This record gives sequence, C-alpha cells and structure tokens, in this order.
Amino acid sequence: MPQIRMVAFDADDTLWRSEDYFDAAQAEFERIVAPHVSGPGALERLAAIERANLAVFGYGVKGMALSMVEAAIEVTEQRIGAADLHRIVVLSKEMLAHPVELLPGIRAAVEEIAAVHPIVMITKGDLFHQEAKVRDSGLGDLFRRIETVSEKDAATYARLLSEFDAGASEFVMIGNSLRSDIAPVLALGGWGVHVPYHLTWAHELEAEIPTAHARRLYTVAEASELPTAVRAIVEAASPESVGA
Amino acid sequence: MPQIRMVAFDADDTLWRSEDYFDAAQAEFERIVAPHVSGPGALERLAAIERANLAVFGYGVKGMALSMVEAAIEVTEQRIGAADLHRIVVLSKEMLAHPVELLPGIRAAVEEIAAVHPIVMITKGDLFHQEAKVRDSGLGDLFRRIETVSEKDAATYARLLSEFDAGASEFVMIGNSLRSDIAPVLALGGWGVHVPYHLTWAHELEAEIPTAHARRLYTVAEASELPTAVRAIVEAASPESVGA
Repeated sequence: MPQIRMVAFDADDTLWRSEDYFDAAQAEFERIVAPHVSGPGALERLAAIERANLAVFGYGVKGMALSMVEAAIEVTEQRIGAADLHRIVVLSKEMLAHPVELLPGIRAAVEEIAAVHPIVMITKGDLFHQEAKVRDSGLGDLFRRIETVSEKDAATYARLLSEFDAGASEFVMIGNSLRSDIAPVLALGGWGVHVPYHLTWAHELEAEIPTAHARRLYTVAEASELPTAVRAIVEAASPESVGA
Repeated sequence: MPQIRMVAFDADDTLWRSEDYFDAAQAEFERIVAPHVSGPGALERLAAIERANLAVFGYGVKGMALSMVEAAIEVTEQRIGAADLHRIVVLSKEMLAHPVELLPGIRAAVEEIAAVHPIVMITKGDLFHQEAKVRDSGLGDLFRRIETVSEKDAATYARLLSEFDAGASEFVMIGNSLRSDIAPVLALGGWGVHVPYHLTWAHELEAEIPTAHARRLYTVAEASELPTAVRAIVEAASPESVGA
C-alpha cells in the first residue's frame, strides 16, 4: 500500500521560467549604467546591495528594482539621470506583467501526478506576483492548496505539513533548488525530487545533503520524468519495500 | 451554548500603526519634489500613479516606493536628481525596518479574547513585511494561524474559512476597514467588529453594508472594548438568542 499522501511542487524554475528574467534584468541594468561608469564591477556592487537589502526587502522583483535604483545611483556616483532610473521602474513592471512561460512537459507531468495524489504548490517570494503567475499559468485548479512563504526552511515545511495534516514521510517535494526545496524536506524525513534548472541563483545552490538522507532524494533531468520518479518514491515508501 | 468558534484580527491599523507611516511618507515625498516643481498637484499625480500601478505592484511599501520614484520623475519632468531619488529608496527601507507600535490596549484585548476563543490573524499586503511585523509585535504566539493575503474579498474569506474548518456564522472578524475586514465577512454570513482608526486610506472606506447584515456588525471606539463586543456576539449567536 502506498504511503505517500501528498506531492508538493515548487513554482519558479520548476513549473515556469523565472531566473531567466532576473538574468535579463541584470544585463539591462548593466546597459543602463554603462554610459556613466568607467570600469567594471557594477554587477558585483548590485549583488552586494541586493544581499544587504534582502533582510528588509525579502525576495522578489520589487525589492530587486529598489536595490537596482540604489546600486545605479551608487556605481555612477549620482551621475545617472532621472530618465535612466525610470527605465529600472519600467523594467520591474515589465517583469511583473510578463506572461508565464511554462517549462516543457510540465503541464502533462503535473496533471499525471494530480490524477493519483493530492498536490500542493509551495512557492517563495512576493505574494502578489506569485498569485498573478498562478492565475496566468492556468495550472491553479490542479492544486489543493497554494502556499506562498517568505523562506523555505525546515520550520516552514513543518508548519505547512501540520496545516496539511500530513507526516513528513508521506510527503514528496519537487523543485529545482537543493537549498529551498530539497534539503529541508529531507531533513524532516520527507522525500525530494530535484529537477535542476539551467540557471540557478548561487544562493539556492548552497545545501548539504547528509548521506543518510540521500536515499530519499531522486533526481530527474526534465519534467516528463517526474511521474516516474513519484511512482518510484511511492514504491520505496510502501511498507512492503525492503529497508523503507 | 456559544456558537462562535473563531475570532480573526486584521493587523495594520487594528493591532499596530501603519497608515501613519504612509501619510508621513507622502509628506516626505512632497518635500523631496518641492524644489523641482512649480505648482501644486504632486500628491494627486502620486495617488494616480499608485492606483495605476496597484494591478502590478499590489499593496505594500515596496510598490509605494517604486510608484514614488516614478511620480517624482514625472512631476519634476525629469529634473529631479539621483540623490533625491535615493531618499525615496532610503525612506522605504526605514518604513520596512520601523519598530512595530502596538495600538493602545490591544495586547490586553487580544490576550483576553485568545483565552476564550481560538484566534487567527488575517492581513493584506507584503508577505515579508507582515511577517517581520508579526515577529516584532510579540503577539505572534497568541495566534493559531497567521494568513497574509493579496486581497480581502468574500472569495478569500470563504477559502480561509474552509481551511480553518469554520462556518461563516461561527466566525468573527475584527478590523478597521469596512471594505476589507467587515463587508465581505458580513456578506458570507459572519460577524464583524469595526474599530475605526483615526486615519484610513480612502480606498478602504468604500463599502456598502446592506441593512440585513447590520445586525451582525458591532462597532467599538477602542481596543479595550473588543472583549465586550466579542462576548455580545457570542450571546447574539447562541441558539437560545431570540432572532439569531
């Protein structure tokens, strides 16, 4: 008898493209400040300012844009003009209004898994933007619950599992970030399916998976392999399975 | 036997000050642009830009700051300098990091109600900022659930009631906004306690309370009256109550 009672999906870079837009925004930032700076280093200063502001702004496009305004002023030593700074605000609005681009094969994979298991979405970042993306994705109705959280750590997953009335050993999390989607769920005793994305913010790569947890971690190369990975977990999690 | 099973609190301007800071930020915006504009109307343009941006930015300080940058550039016809625009970013960081100021008497009122009923917090706006305020308030542990939502309408309350496993007629919402806290809950068949705040964003005043719903609406002048109002609702909601 399968013991898996719930399958959760990350959203950004698991269901749809996200990091591509942040990378494109950084390239645009570099073009905006380029005429006003003499040497390299603008992106490094932007990254440092974004890190320093993370504690007050949190994740998301609006905080990124405010950090870009601040960084543009600093790296140009206030030489940048109002029109160029306005381009950063416009850029943030374009990112927030950008149509959702689902990743290849993800709709079929989500539908196939949802036909067998209750599924939920657990996403990090700006609530307003995430809800807009869920609406635009057309996937919302497949999910029992859609949770936007400010940080994906073990305490957050423990709270959500309690709200979902599911045990960690009955729970599978699917996502592209080892740090946010996989490591904390494995630490609680849950199961993880890692789907690496071609672009990953360095911050999201920092994770240690203890060897003892690794048997509950599956890795797939693309979305079409997700249903098979979940079936393998159901098999491994069943009481009849040796060593489960 | 009391039928009320859950009491919910709004947060901004119900538990702690919020609108005061937005008002102060507007005054600061006016001071920042004043040297670069010839006539009045800067605040009207800011309000119009904020309204237009609400659909992409949602509620909260970061969206306000981006709208202020845009408005400052527009009303000064790009004459404003980088240093003045940086003051807007700094202002947003100060607002986000500002210590929470609880409203007079609210801690005792929340504790008294929490001793009798399970309580939850339902707040609108930026998830990251709301969570920071909850932590700073010291009230978080009193609440069974803390929900940040992007819009407080009847559909949102219906979803939350389903998640809380509570019926509308068993549910009391306490808040300062007729539009967001009271009208949608009354429309679902729930109970409301309105605590007017000395400052209210015009947007939050727009609400129609049908006469038929008014008997489920209580109004108090200050937080210390909240436990009495909740007791009156428990009494009115009990099956023995005439006309309940």
